[in-house]
Amino acid sequence: MSKIAKLYEGKAKILYSTEDPEILLSVYKDDATAFNAQKKGTIKGKGEINCTVASALFQSLETNGIATHYIDCPTPNQMRVKAVKIIPVEVVVRNIAAGSLCRQTGLKEGTVLPCPLVEYYLKDDDLGDPLLTRDRLFLLDIVTEEQLSTIHKMALKINQHLQEFFNRCQITLVDFKLEFGFDSQQKIILADEISPDTCRLWDQTETDPQARVMDKDRFRKDLGQVESAYSKVQERVLAALNI
Amino acid sequence: MSKIAKLYEGKAKILYSTEDPEILLSVYKDDATAFNAQKKGTIKGKGEINCTVASALFQSLETNGIATHYIDCPTPNQMRVKAVKIIPVEVVVRNIAAGSLCRQTGLKEGTVLPCPLVEYYLKDDDLGDPLLTRDRLFLLDIVTEEQLSTIHKMALKINQHLQEFFNRCQITLVDFKLEFGFDSQQKIILADEISPDTCRLWDQTETDPQARVMDKDRFRKDLGQVESAYSKVQERVLAALNI
Repeated sequence: MSKIAKLYEGKAKILYSTEDPEILLSVYKDDATAFNAQKKGTIKGKGEINCTVASALFQSLETNGIATHYIDCPTPNQMRVKAVKIIPVEVVVRNIAAGSLCRQTGLKEGTVLPCPLVEYYLKDDDLGDPLLTRDRLFLLDIVTEEQLSTIHKMALKINQHLQEFFNRCQITLVDFKLEFGFDSQQKIILADEISPDTCRLWDQTETDPQARVMDKDRFRKDLGQVESAYSKVQERVLAALNI
Repeated sequence: MSKIAKLYEGKAKILYSTEDPEILLSVYKDDATAFNAQKKGTIKGKGEINCTVASALFQSLETNGIATHYIDCPTPNQMRVKAVKIIPVEVVVRNIAAGSLCRQTGLKEGTVLPCPLVEYYLKDDDLGDPLLTRDRLFLLDIVTEEQLSTIHKMALKINQHLQEFFNRCQITLVDFKLEFGFDSQQKIILADEISPDTCRLWDQTETDPQARVMDKDRFRKDLGQVESAYSKVQERVLAALNI
């Protein structure tokens, strides 16, 4: 599978076209950004780790009846994916209060939510990825009510599966961000990635609030040992797959 | 009606208890603030104008079957109101895109919305009055689904009445903020104020985007002639009442 043209370079991945118009090549980078790219750095080995973790999780989701853009990984940091038209919304599923939810509501970090919260943020760096209400989603003509209902149900199903999966890894899935797109048949499928860059993951074998962090918050908050935390996630995810 | 004790001093009003525990005295101030009180100033005569305008609008709403906290005005800048337990949510009704809606969605100011948008913001200065989704409203235990449904219906009914009222004044009601509270019978009634401080009002006799502004945006954006704009609103509202 050869790269034909660079279509898009994001903060963590580069997307290339291939000889097949329905297949793209996603190359995972070691580059790390936070706070809407105001903080920049590198996490050594992140490209391979995130690609491997995302590949494992996508395959696990597919086995459980959730359609994703995943095809296969020709190299450890490259993923072949179905070409989709991305829906410009970041879908965030929250099981435990953290991050912007706490900053915006005053809820204490670590508060277990009575039921999973599915939230929508406009994928727009210039506007700072603002929170969207249902009415604003429809006002901006981003999705129809029927499409939103599909996305909401898929997000909850993905959450249930990932929670169970990460529990087997002794990892608590605090929250995570998803992106969806339309495939060539106009079907909504899961796209982008699922990795320590896009999830908050807490190590169930650690009780200290800083030591338990296994995700990009180590980079955001300068907690150190970023690479080893990412590696640990990869090891446990691969081990869980082999059970 | 004598003031007994100062209960609360807000940015634009001071609330006093009276000899009757079910009645409070609200004294409207000339103080003006914007951007979460980062900008401070005085608008001469604002206390009397806002009290007079709010009094007129509350009476007009009452006549149209909308329960408010309004009783009467013993002096031009003092309003006797029913004591309520305020619901800590700012309810914003939007007919035309302006302000934070534009900043947060990229919609162009002046875009006429296909239908009125009712939005909820947490009344919390420390958190910067953040936008709340329905799920966050319930998560924070601020209202029940039934209460929210009541508030939503009241907000739309108030909007319809105020739009018609302001149209008679040759004023376009762009958007406005409402607050609701529980009265002594636990009924939800309209509280706070409705005035050029809490509404965006555009003069239909002016076409220039700056000249048409008749509300606190003149103060926020340093457009000048703040007092005369507020006075004009008062004159037209009082004239419309006498039709």
